[in-house]
Amino acid sequence: MAQNSFLGDMLTTLFERRWSSSGITDTRSIEKMCLSLLDAEGEVSGIRLATAILDRYAELDAEAKLAFFQFLNSDLEIDPAALHALSAQYLETGAYDDYHAILTTAEPRRQELLRRLNQSPGATATLVSMRVDLLRLLREHPELRRTDLDFVHLLRSWFNRGFLVLREISWNTPASILEKIVAYEAVHAINDWDDLRRRLYPPDRRCYAYFHPTMPDEPLIFVEVALTKNIPSSIQAVLAEDRPQRDASETRVAVFYSISNCQYGLQGISFGNLLIKQVADELSQALPQIETFATLSPIPGLMRWLSDLKDNPTALRLAEGAGNDDELREMAAHYLLKERKTSGAPLDPVARFHLGNGAQIHAVHAQADLTEKGQAQSGGAMVNYLYDLTQIEKNHETYVRGEDLPASKAVTGLANAAKAHLDVTPAD
Amino acid sequence: MAQNSFLGDMLTTLFERRWSSSGITDTRSIEKMCLSLLDAEGEVSGIRLATAILDRYAELDAEAKLAFFQFLNSDLEIDPAALHALSAQYLETGAYDDYHAILTTAEPRRQELLRRLNQSPGATATLVSMRVDLLRLLREHPELRRTDLDFVHLLRSWFNRGFLVLREISWNTPASILEKIVAYEAVHAINDWDDLRRRLYPPDRRCYAYFHPTMPDEPLIFVEVALTKNIPSSIQAVLAEDRPQRDASETRVAVFYSISNCQYGLQGISFGNLLIKQVADELSQALPQIETFATLSPIPGLMRWLSDLKDNPTALRLAEGAGNDDELREMAAHYLLKERKTSGAPLDPVARFHLGNGAQIHAVHAQADLTEKGQAQSGGAMVNYLYDLTQIEKNHETYVRGEDLPASKAVTGLANAAKAHLDVTPAD
Amino acid sequence: MAQNSFLGDMLTTLFERRWSSSGITDTRSIEKMCLSLLDAEGEVSGIRLATAILDRYAELDAEAKLAFFQFLNSDLEIDPAALHALSAQYLETGAYDDYHAILTTAEPRRQELLRRLNQSPGATATLVSMRVDLLRLLREHPELRRTDLDFVHLLRSWFNRGFLVLREISWNTPASILEKIVAYEAVHAINDWDDLRRRLYPPDRRCYAYFHPTMPDEPLIFVEVALTKNIPSSIQAVLAEDRPQRDASETRVAVFYSISNCQYGLQGISFGNLLIKQVADELSQALPQIETFATLSPIPGLMRWLSDLKDNPTALRLAEGAGNDDELREMAAHYLLKERKTSGAPLDPVARFHLGNGAQIHAVHAQADLTEKGQAQSGGAMVNYLYDLTQIEKNHETYVRGEDLPASKAVTGLANAAKAHLDVTPAD
Amino acid sequence: MAQNSFLGDMLTTLFERRWSSSGITDTRSIEKMCLSLLDAEGEVSGIRLATAILDRYAELDAEAKLAFFQFLNSDLEIDPAALHALSAQYLETGAYDDYHAILTTAEPRRQELLRRLNQSPGATATLVSMRVDLLRLLREHPELRRTDLDFVHLLRSWFNRGFLVLREISWNTPASILEKIVAYEAVHAINDWDDLRRRLYPPDRRCYAYFHPTMPDEPLIFVEVALTKNIPSSIQAVLAEDRPQRDASETRVAVFYSISNCQYGLQGISFGNLLIKQVADELSQALPQIETFATLSPIPGLMRWLSDLKDNPTALRLAEGAGNDDELREMAAHYLLKERKTSGAPLDPVARFHLGNGAQIHAVHAQADLTEKGQAQSGGAMVNYLYDLTQIEKNHETYVRGEDLPASKAVTGLANAAKAHLDVTPAD
Repeated sequence: MAQNSFLGDMLTTLFERRWSSSGITDTRSIEKMCLSLLDAEGEVSGIRLATAILDRYAELDAEAKLAFFQFLNSDLEIDPAALHALSAQYLETGAYDDYHAILTTAEPRRQELLRRLNQSPGATATLVSMRVDLLRLLREHPELRRTDLDFVHLLRSWFNRGFLVLREISWNTPASILEKIVAYEAVHAINDWDDLRRRLYPPDRRCYAYFHPTMPDEPLIFVEVALTKNIPSSIQAVLAEDRPQRDASETRVAVFYSISNCQYGLQGISFGNLLIKQVADELSQALPQIETFATLSPIPGLMRWLSDLKDNPTALRLAEGAGNDDELREMAAHYLLKERKTSGAPLDPVARFHLGNGAQIHAVHAQADLTEKGQAQSGGAMVNYLYDLTQIEKNHETYVRGEDLPASKAVTGLANAAKAHLDVTPAD
Repeated sequence: MAQNSFLGDMLTTLFERRWSSSGITDTRSIEKMCLSLLDAEGEVSGIRLATAILDRYAELDAEAKLAFFQFLNSDLEIDPAALHALSAQYLETGAYDDYHAILTTAEPRRQELLRRLNQSPGATATLVSMRVDLLRLLREHPELRRTDLDFVHLLRSWFNRGFLVLREISWNTPASILEKIVAYEAVHAINDWDDLRRRLYPPDRRCYAYFHPTMPDEPLIFVEVALTKNIPSSIQAVLAEDRPQRDASETRVAVFYSISNCQYGLQGISFGNLLIKQVADELSQALPQIETFATLSPIPGLMRWLSDLKDNPTALRLAEGAGNDDELREMAAHYLLKERKTSGAPLDPVARFHLGNGAQIHAVHAQADLTEKGQAQSGGAMVNYLYDLTQIEKNHETYVRGEDLPASKAVTGLANAAKAHLDVTPAD
Repeated sequence: MAQNSFLGDMLTTLFERRWSSSGITDTRSIEKMCLSLLDAEGEVSGIRLATAILDRYAELDAEAKLAFFQFLNSDLEIDPAALHALSAQYLETGAYDDYHAILTTAEPRRQELLRRLNQSPGATATLVSMRVDLLRLLREHPELRRTDLDFVHLLRSWFNRGFLVLREISWNTPASILEKIVAYEAVHAINDWDDLRRRLYPPDRRCYAYFHPTMPDEPLIFVEVALTKNIPSSIQAVLAEDRPQRDASETRVAVFYSISNCQYGLQGISFGNLLIKQVADELSQALPQIETFATLSPIPGLMRWLSDLKDNPTALRLAEGAGNDDELREMAAHYLLKERKTSGAPLDPVARFHLGNGAQIHAVHAQADLTEKGQAQSGGAMVNYLYDLTQIEKNHETYVRGEDLPASKAVTGLANAAKAHLDVTPAD
Repeated sequence: MAQNSFLGDMLTTLFERRWSSSGITDTRSIEKMCLSLLDAEGEVSGIRLATAILDRYAELDAEAKLAFFQFLNSDLEIDPAALHALSAQYLETGAYDDYHAILTTAEPRRQELLRRLNQSPGATATLVSMRVDLLRLLREHPELRRTDLDFVHLLRSWFNRGFLVLREISWNTPASILEKIVAYEAVHAINDWDDLRRRLYPPDRRCYAYFHPTMPDEPLIFVEVALTKNIPSSIQAVLAEDRPQRDASETRVAVFYSISNCQYGLQGISFGNLLIKQVADELSQALPQIETFATLSPIPGLMRWLSDLKDNPTALRLAEGAGNDDELREMAAHYLLKERKTSGAPLDPVARFHLGNGAQIHAVHAQADLTEKGQAQSGGAMVNYLYDLTQIEKNHETYVRGEDLPASKAVTGLANAAKAHLDVTPAD
C-alpha cells in the first residue's frame, strides 16, 4: 500500500511538471518548427519546441489547421518509389540493413513528429483533441485519411489496454470529474446533480470509468450499473426516483444500463469490450452472490428499419404508434437476430457491440423506454443482452463466423413469430 | 490536489487489477497461442490469453526461448515481395487503400503480437525482461536483430518521454525501492544502508529517478546530486563520511556525480539527457540561488587509450602509475577533447553522453577518484562537465556538426600542453 | 512527501477499522452497561462495550435519552462532601496522595465514561451528535448543564486547535463533502450546484474548511473568500452570476464574505478566530500581492435594535423602509460602535466575533444586501471588518479592556453623525 | 476511497502548516510568556506565543528546565482552601455556578497551559518529549509528581484509543520510519537492515504499529508477528536466517514474538492491550485460517527471582548454569503462576501484561533464547501466552479478582512439580 502511495505521489509529478519557459517566442512557421523538431534541434530541446508547436497549433484558425494537416499529409509522407526499390533489394539480399531501411521508409515521418510532440506533459490530451479537428476535416478532405491512419496507429499504442486505469466513480469522486460524467452521458441523459446522485450514491448502484495516466481529468469511457434482484424490463424501473433501494448484498444481478464513450478523438479505439468484462470481474470478486451480468440496452435502429419496410402493415402500425406490444417485441427480436449488414454483422450498432463481445440476446421488452428519444428510436422497446462468462468465447466465435446469433428460446420464438408479419403481401 | 489524489488512487488500480483466472491450463504450444492471440480469439479473451503466453514464456528454457524468438523472427516477418508489388501499385494509383495496405504490410506481425501481449497488467515489465533475453541471444544470433528492431520501436513508443514520471528518492522512500537504488548504482558503489543514508538524507543531497506508470517498483534511471558551494574536484570530497553538511540554501552548485541506467532491457532508449535537464529545471525552481549545474564524471576510457599509445613515454609512465598529476591532466584533456571515433564523436563514452547533451568540458582533475576502479580506468582522473543552460543548444549543434568541442580555456590549455607529450618521437 | 503519504494511508485505517462483532446482543440496560464500561470489564473489552453502548443510545427514544442524561448527571456526579474533607486534609498534609485524591474526586465519573466511549472508531462524531441531543434537552432541563460542562471540557480537549486540519474546498473536492458545504452555508444560501460552482471554481474564489482527523466527512467550519481588486461594498457584486472573473495574480484584497459553523454539537468551542488567521496566513504566502484582508459581513441585529428605539423618527422611517441610505449607514455605524451589552461587549453578535478577533470596522454600506433576509435584519446594510495583521493584538487588547472600538475615520464620522438622529426628542 | 484520499491529503496539511513567523524575538522570561498565554494575549495570538514558548523551552539548560517545572508545579497549582470553601458552599446550594467553580478550581492552571501549548503544529510531540525531561527530574524531585499527573491526564485524553492509527510496517514502508523500528526494538535486537528485511519481507512475517495523527514520524508501539504452522518453542527457530518461508495461506498460528513501546514520554499510557487485540482481529479477517494467537515471550525476572532464593539447591544450580531443562521449566512455571507482588499481581512484568490482557500461560520452554541477554534474564527459558479470544474476558476477571492464573494442564503440572525443588531444606 505504501508502495502504491509512492506511485500515487509519483503520478502527480507527471502533471505538475512545469518547465520554466524560455520566454522567447518562436517566430518561425509551425511547419518549419515541425521540421526542426524532426531534426537535431529536437534532440536537445525537444520538449520546449514540442510545447511551442502545440501552443501555436491551438491558436491556428480553421484554414491554417487545414494547411497544417495537409503539410503532414503531403510533406511528411512515405516515398513509395524508395520503398519499391528497397523491397526489391531486400528480396535479393535479405540483409538487416535493407530490412531496417524498409521499416524506416515505410513509416511516414509524421509518426515520428507526433511521437516527439507527445514528449511534453499534457501533450497526449492535446493530440487527442487535434484528432477531433482532423476527424471533422476528413469529411471534406478524405485524402487526410492517410494522416488519420497514423494518429490511430499511435493512439492505439499509447492507449494500450495495459495502460488503462479503471476507477470507480462514486459520490466521493471530485465534482470536477462528476460534471464530465453528466456531460458525457450519451444514453440516458443525467438531468442534474440530484439525478447524478441517484445514479451513484445508493448502495445498489455503481459506476466505473477508464482513465489514462496522462489524462487524469478525462474519463475515456464509463458504464453505469444497477444491482438488482432480477433482470429489469424497463429503464423507468431502473431510474425511478422513488424506487426502493437495496443493500448490495441482497442483489443477484448486475445490469449495465448505460455505456458512454467520452473522447471523440479516440474514435475507432475501442475500450467498451474490456470495460464490461473488467467491471464484471471486479463485481464478481467484491460481491460473489452476483451471478448474472446483463444489460438493459436501447435498440437505436429499430424504428428506422421499420420505416424502411415501406408497405408492411405491421411496420406501418408500429411506426404510427398504433401497434401492440407483442408485435413490437416480435419485430424487434427479428430485427436484432436476423437483419444483417452486407458484412454479415448485425444491422443494429448496439447489437453489434454486445454480440461482438460475446453476449447473447436474452429478452426483448416493450414499453421499456418511454422517453421521447426511446419512443423515437425503438418505439419504446429495449433489450437485455446477457454476458454469460462461460459462453462468451463460444458466442464470439459464432459471431465471427457469421453464424446464427445466440439468443434465449424466448427471443428466438419472438423472432420466429415475426415471420407472420413479414411474410404478408401488402394489400393492393 | 484532490484531483491528483484521485489520480493517485486511480493508478493503484493499475497494479491491483487481478483477473480471476480461468484455472484451465492451455495445452497448446506457445507459438500456437501467439497465432491465436493475433486472431479472433485475441479480440474477446485477449487478456487471459496474453497472460497465459507470458506465464508460459517465463517457464521456457534457453533453447525454447531461442526457438520462440526465431518463430517471431521468421514466421511473423514482413513479406517484401508483397511490399514490392504494393508500392508499385500505390505509385500508380495513389489510392488510400493501397497506402493502407503498404503500412499494414510493412509492419511485421510480431509488432501486433507484442502490443497484444502488453494488454495484461504488469506485462510491460515482462516484455522489458523478455528483451534482456533477446539482447543476450543477439550475440550469437545476429539475425534476431530484426525482431529487436520491433522491440525497440514499441518500447520507445510506450516509454515515450511524456509518460515518464520523475520522483525524488529520499530517506522517506519505501525500502523496497531504495534497495533497488543500491543494486543499480553503477558508478560509485553504495556499500550499505549507512552509505545510502549519507547519499539521501543530508540537506545538501538529492536523488531523482524516472519511473513508468506500469512499472512502479522499478526505477528506469536515477541521478545522485550533491549541492555544494563550489564545483568539486574529487569524489572523495563528495562522499567523505565526515564531510561538513550544509543547508541547501547555502549552496550554489548542483553536482550530478552519478547517473545509472537500471533496465538493461531498455538499452538504446535514452532517458539520461532528459533526466539531467528536468532535474536541473526542478532544482533551479526550488532553489533559485543554484546557478551552476555540473557533473563530476569518470573518464572510463582514459587508461585504455593511454595503453594503446604503445611507445609514448608519458603514456608509459602514466600507465605504470609513475606519471605526475599535470601530465595526467594534460593527457586526459587531450583525450576528451581531441580523440574521436571514425564517426567524429568523442572516443570516451561518458564524454559522448554529456557533450552530446550540450554540456562543455569545464575542468580536469587528478587524484580525483582514488578507488581501485578509478585508478584502473583513468589513473584517478575525473572531469567536470558544465551544463550552461544558455549554451546547451549551441553546444549541441557544434557537436552534431563535428566541430571543435566546447571547453573552458583551462582545459583547452591543458589539451594544448599535451602536444608536447604526444609529439615526442619515442627514443630509439 | 512520501512520508506524508504514509500518513495519508495511515489515516485511512482510522476509519476503515472494523472490529468483527461478537454477534451477541447485550441485554443489560444502557446504564448498567455504562457502569460496566467504567469497571474492570471496560479495560479488557472496552471497545466492543463502548460500541454497544453507542449503538444502544442511537435507538433510544426521547424519554429514554433524557433518562440516560439524568443518569449521567446524577449517578456519575462528584461527591462534594468527600471533596470538602479531602481539601482540608491536603491543606494540612500537602501530601501527593491527597492531591491525587482531590483531582480524582473533583472529576465527575461521566468524564471517564465519555473518554471510554470515545475509544471506538467513529465514536467522536457520535459523541458530538449526542451533545446535540443534550443541548436541546438543556432548555427544559437546565440542571443538565453540569453534564454539558463535561462534554465541553472533553470536546475542547479532543478538538484542540493543534488537531484541526485545514483543507481547501474546491471544485476538485468530493461531491459528498461539497453537498455538506451547500447544506451548512448559513450566511448567503447556496441555491444549487451551479451556484456552488460559482463560489469554488473561478480563479478569484477560495474556500477553506477545518476538519478533525476522526470526522473526515464532516467540515467543522468553513469560510468563503473572494479575491478582489478593492474591498467590495455589496454582496450582490460579489455573487453576481455574470461578474467578470480575474486571475488571482491580479487581485489585492481577500474578502471573507461568509463564515459558517457546521456542527451544532460543538457549540461553544470556537474555531472561527483561528480559521480566519490561518487562511489569511496561507493566502499571503501563496499570493504575496494580497495586502488587505477584510470581511463583507451582515449586521444581523440592526433592525431589531432600531425597532427597539420605539419613538425615534429616524428609526421609525428606517424600520418602514422609508429612510435614506445616509441615515441607515449612520445608524448602523452607531449601532456597531456604541451599542454594548451589559458586559461591555458589542451588541451585534457578528461585531463581537470580528472585533473580539482583533479586527476593526472599516466601512458601512447601504443597499449592500438586497435579499429578503438582508433587508429584514439590517435594512440591506453590511459592514467591512478589516483584519490588519499588524494591529490585531492591539485591537484585541482594547476590546478586552472595554475601551473605544477601533474604526476607520469614515465610520467614526458616521457614528458621530448618528447623534443628530438619536438626540431628537420625539415629537409630542 | 476518494474520500479517504481527501482525508489523506487533509492530514498532510496538519504537518505542513507553517505560520509566517513575526520575526521578533520575545524577550520575556518563559514563565512570563506562559502567564501571558493563559491570559488575553493567548486568545488572539496563542499559536505564535505557544510556538515561541516551546522554542524557548528547547534551549533551556537542565537547571532552567527544573525551574520551569517548579514554576508549573507551584505557581500554576490549585488552591485547596478555595476548594474547601467552594465544596462547602456547593453542598449547601447545589447551584450550578458553584459546581462550575469547583471544577475550575480543582483543575491546576498548568493543564490549561499545556492545552494552549498544544495548539501549534508539532506541539504534541514536543510535549511528549517535555515529559521525558519531567520523568527524569521526578527521581530527584518527587514533588513534581503533581505536575506529572496533569501531563498524564492530558496525554491520555489526546492519545485516546479512538485517535490511534494502526499501520502495517512492511518492506514498502519509508526508510525513515523503518530506522525507528530498528532503534526502538526492545526485545530481540535488530542487528542491521538485512535482519530487518528478514522480519518484514517474507510472506509469513508481519509487523504493525500504532501512530498518532499529530506524530506521523513516530511509531508509538509496534508488534512483530510470525505466521507459523505450530506454536514455536524457541526464538532461534523464529529468527533463523535460513528458516524455510511459508506462504501465509499455509499458516495456522500468529505468534506475537516482540512488542516494543517507542515513546518513553508516554509511559503509563498503555496501548499494548489494544494493539494485540486489534492485530489479532485484522489477521483473523485477512487470514481466516489462522486459529491460534499466541506469544513467544521472555521471562525477564526469572533469574533474579532464582538468585533471591538464596540457599535453594535447584536455584543455585540453575543460577550457575548447571541445572537441567526440566528443572528450569518447572521453576519458571512456578515463578510465572505462583509468585505474586503484594498487590496480588504476578511478579513477572511480562506475565502481568499478558495475563492482565486476558491471556493464559500455554507452555514453558528451555533453551528457547540462547542469546546472552536471554541466558542472563531467564536461563534461556521462554513462555507462550495464548490469546484465546473466547476466554479473554473470563481470564481477565479471574486476574482482577486475584484468583488462580489461567494455564494449560502442562504448565500447571510443571508448576506443581516445582514444589519438590522448593520444599527442600537446604542441606546444612
